[in-house]
Amino acid sequence: MFIKNAWYCAGWDYQVSQGKTALIARKIAGERVVLYRKLNGDVVAMEDRCPHRQAALSMGSKEGDELRCMYHGLKFGSDGKCTEIPGQSNIPERACVRVFPVVEKDNWIWVWMGDPLKADPSLITDAVGPSHPDYNTRPCYIQIDADYRLENANLADLSHSSFTHDATIAMGWAQALAKPQHKVLPRGVKTDYWVRNVPVPKFVEHMFPPGFMCDAHFDITQTVPCNWILHFRVFMAGTATEGESDGMLVLDSWSCQAITPRDERSVDYYYSWGVSKATDRPGLSDLLKEGLDEAFREDKAMLEGQQKRMEEKPNFKTFDIAADAGPGKMLWVLDKLIKEEASQSESLIASMA
Amino acid sequence: MFIKNAWYCAGWDYQVSQGKTALIARKIAGERVVLYRKLNGDVVAMEDRCPHRQAALSMGSKEGDELRCMYHGLKFGSDGKCTEIPGQSNIPERACVRVFPVVEKDNWIWVWMGDPLKADPSLITDAVGPSHPDYNTRPCYIQIDADYRLENANLADLSHSSFTHDATIAMGWAQALAKPQHKVLPRGVKTDYWVRNVPVPKFVEHMFPPGFMCDAHFDITQTVPCNWILHFRVFMAGTATEGESDGMLVLDSWSCQAITPRDERSVDYYYSWGVSKATDRPGLSDLLKEGLDEAFREDKAMLEGQQKRMEEKPNFKTFDIAADAGPGKMLWVLDKLIKEEASQSESLIASMA
Amino acid sequence: MFIKNAWYCAGWDYQVSQGKTALIARKIAGERVVLYRKLNGDVVAMEDRCPHRQAALSMGSKEGDELRCMYHGLKFGSDGKCTEIPGQSNIPERACVRVFPVVEKDNWIWVWMGDPLKADPSLITDAVGPSHPDYNTRPCYIQIDADYRLENANLADLSHSSFTHDATIAMGWAQALAKPQHKVLPRGVKTDYWVRNVPVPKFVEHMFPPGFMCDAHFDITQTVPCNWILHFRVFMAGTATEGESDGMLVLDSWSCQAITPRDERSVDYYYSWGVSKATDRPGLSDLLKEGLDEAFREDKAMLEGQQKRMEEKPNFKTFDIAADAGPGKMLWVLDKLIKEEASQSESLIASMA
Ligand code: FES
Ligand code: FES
Ligand code: FES
Repeated sequence: MFIKNAWYCAGWDYQVSQGKTALIARKIAGERVVLYRKLNGDVVAMEDRCPHRQAALSMGSKEGDELRCMYHGLKFGSDGKCTEIPGQSNIPERACVRVFPVVEKDNWIWVWMGDPLKADPSLITDAVGPSHPDYNTRPCYIQIDADYRLENANLADLSHSSFTHDATIAMGWAQALAKPQHKVLPRGVKTDYWVRNVPVPKFVEHMFPPGFMCDAHFDITQTVPCNWILHFRVFMAGTATEGESDGMLVLDSWSCQAITPRDERSVDYYYSWGVSKATDRPGLSDLLKEGLDEAFREDKAMLEGQQKRMEEKPNFKTFDIAADAGPGKMLWVLDKLIKEEASQSESLIASMA
Repeated sequence: MFIKNAWYCAGWDYQVSQGKTALIARKIAGERVVLYRKLNGDVVAMEDRCPHRQAALSMGSKEGDELRCMYHGLKFGSDGKCTEIPGQSNIPERACVRVFPVVEKDNWIWVWMGDPLKADPSLITDAVGPSHPDYNTRPCYIQIDADYRLENANLADLSHSSFTHDATIAMGWAQALAKPQHKVLPRGVKTDYWVRNVPVPKFVEHMFPPGFMCDAHFDITQTVPCNWILHFRVFMAGTATEGESDGMLVLDSWSCQAITPRDERSVDYYYSWGVSKATDRPGLSDLLKEGLDEAFREDKAMLEGQQKRMEEKPNFKTFDIAADAGPGKMLWVLDKLIKEEASQSESLIASMA
Repeated sequence: MFIKNAWYCAGWDYQVSQGKTALIARKIAGERVVLYRKLNGDVVAMEDRCPHRQAALSMGSKEGDELRCMYHGLKFGSDGKCTEIPGQSNIPERACVRVFPVVEKDNWIWVWMGDPLKADPSLITDAVGPSHPDYNTRPCYIQIDADYRLENANLADLSHSSFTHDATIAMGWAQALAKPQHKVLPRGVKTDYWVRNVPVPKFVEHMFPPGFMCDAHFDITQTVPCNWILHFRVFMAGTATEGESDGMLVLDSWSCQAITPRDERSVDYYYSWGVSKATDRPGLSDLLKEGLDEAFREDKAMLEGQQKRMEEKPNFKTFDIAADAGPGKMLWVLDKLIKEEASQSESLIASMA
């Protein structure tokens, strides 16, 4: 089940270019979408399905701001309306492709999959993208063959980092033992916590003095469908006040992650980890990127194994632990919004009856 | 849904040879078929399924004119009857494989998938095969993972050539703007039209004088299940009379295409494009073959994309354009014959009750 | 359908080692199983499914004799009980993994998939494993994508050897013409027969004098789910008494084969063919191994073709031949035991109602 009235990330802005062949095919929440740029640079998102005979519009041809289906040549404007049927003057009303609202923000392209009248850009999560002047950030990508609900649960509880990412980005057992505060938002969950007096993750250890201990602050905003924005700061241990940022800062970074369900069992995962120019040092950004890449391969293996097992035993009885508080809240919000949408369309149908 | 009482192409004649291992496995209209040649050269087609335990007879061994299942050694005559059970003298009545009528014609092997009593060789489409003395023709093949109905629609409307085959075999927009006449036949559709005063397709342009313009005549017979025979002639522009062949002929060619559904969503596609020896020139046959190969890869991509989308949204509402007249007629004939078969077997059942 | 109260082979003993990463994942009769060795060498078999969120325990980490799930860090003892939830002192009762009884015997690891109280080690088939001092034996493996019932039928009737293994391990038509005696056992079938005055299999022919003829004795015990133990002895023709072993022995060998269904349509096949040191000769063991490897690739092709055809036409009517006596008996025993299990659990449910 997907929430329809939500912004879904369709990728990094650089992926949709002006070239003739730049028709990008995506699957978002079960729908096929084709993306392209108009001459003025605006991105258009349409259903990737010709209304004539269901050919792939992403196999079509961009002509100026319009898109021609290269099966039988119907041409569509960026508003989805058919503008030409070769050899025929009459154009039927229904020769029309569904068009989705699009916004570019922080180097991500966002597509609204629900009622266009409700497409409020202020609902798009704030992020720090690759073109932010103060951070060194590179865009990354991975595909994971698992339900985006499993991703939501994964991201809403960083305790797994101590185990799944033991050899990569974990800070020992610090995250497993932390007691994060989760605050429910209208469309997500806000999570905030410190880990104190811990070593830096193994893979960056050699960049710090031997025995260096730190305090780290996690400030996370997670929103539907599955976006996850982390402001991650590291201070010399003992120098930072709770709730404030007045310590000796050794790393100021943002990790911005947008996970888009392709269908019920696979996701497109767009992520980055950017270090502030003020706290970056030679090789650090590269190292963080590699560490995160490797960590996401660890997640991929874990989640795909979990997905297979859940499909095999859908009624298997599980139990909760303390660390499930965050995932529980995030999935509760998601389910609540999905249910509200369902009841709204039911009452709409009832009012029309 | 398949028509059973029809001849299906099982491949090129050279593919079934006399060698010991020459047992060719095919899937035709959902049925597994094994083909081999008898000592006198006749081709035998049997269900590729041993009646004993359903092993593949195509993994068997040819012994003279007979076929031995190499699981437990049962041997079957070319009439399908079991002739030997090793170590056992009694042979049960039902030890019998279904045999299909076979005809070789124009270098294609044709198999009748329905009631053998109705297998009328005069229903086989006429074609110009590789061994025709007047044409230089080579046999080609592609597999396409799409419903043969989509292939029928594709071939019954060449307007798609102007778009899908834009970079290969198209003659500009000429085919999209042509107004073909479609005549319904008892088992297919006959299509006839001219395109006038157009450039030759890009990929053969360099073989003609700069700016060379031509008139081209398409004479097409399409028959069930999905056979398509085109007599394609090109004249110097302005020299040919409508309906006649009296102009300055620069290309006389046949493209013969037999598409056999393997199952509901994949086809075996046997095709050729042969140029008359009188109008061939060095390299032209090769070029046409390569052009057609490339065009069929274009079709393959388009149709497989369409197939996926139709499976995802089987109830998606489409609309028709003028170019759909040919496909509409062809699919109407096909559906009519399928329905007639169904009602005949129903009335047969009723008469026996 | 599987019999649950049975020992299933989970592989060769050397496959489960002491290393940190030595968590072996298997699928046995539809259940996911993870195997590891304790410090004392005992093998533990657990369901490969964390009770917390269904992550793969085989992606976990061995800590002493315990297994930690590396998703959220729950640790389980070798009895399946959770011993630690990081950051939480309370451990719920249901934090428990299913554990399966394990026995190592003759270099195979055996897992009991049913009621642990019924796990009687005396039900494990006797075999001659690679570490048997009197035989030169190497462990082999193949995966076959077919129902284990088809494997049972294949092994219960060696007549197929004369055809399927014509070019490899067959002794001409001798096995097809033999009249094996099949005796039904409580959990399998015992089969015993001689073939007399036949050439040795083609692939070992060059190891014997030209024209060498032999008598061969097959002594087979086949048990549920699908284990097959053959004592295979070859004598100089005419020197051995029926039922006795008093002839001129030229080959004394055991082929031990344990076939474990992964699910309803694939099996893990662990097999060996070992020659007594007394009758081995340079190169013979290697040759037999290669011959058997090749024969099992022949079986794989045949059974997978059969499997596909049975899925396509599940209601296809087949018929029996004399050679089906063995397979018929073996499948009858298997079905009987499966049915008995089903009725026992039904009466258990009834008695509790
Ligand atoms: S399917 Fe797009 S124009 Fe026909
Ligand atoms: S399956 Fe063909 S002989 Fe048994
Ligand atoms: S799934 Fe194993 S600890 Fe959570």
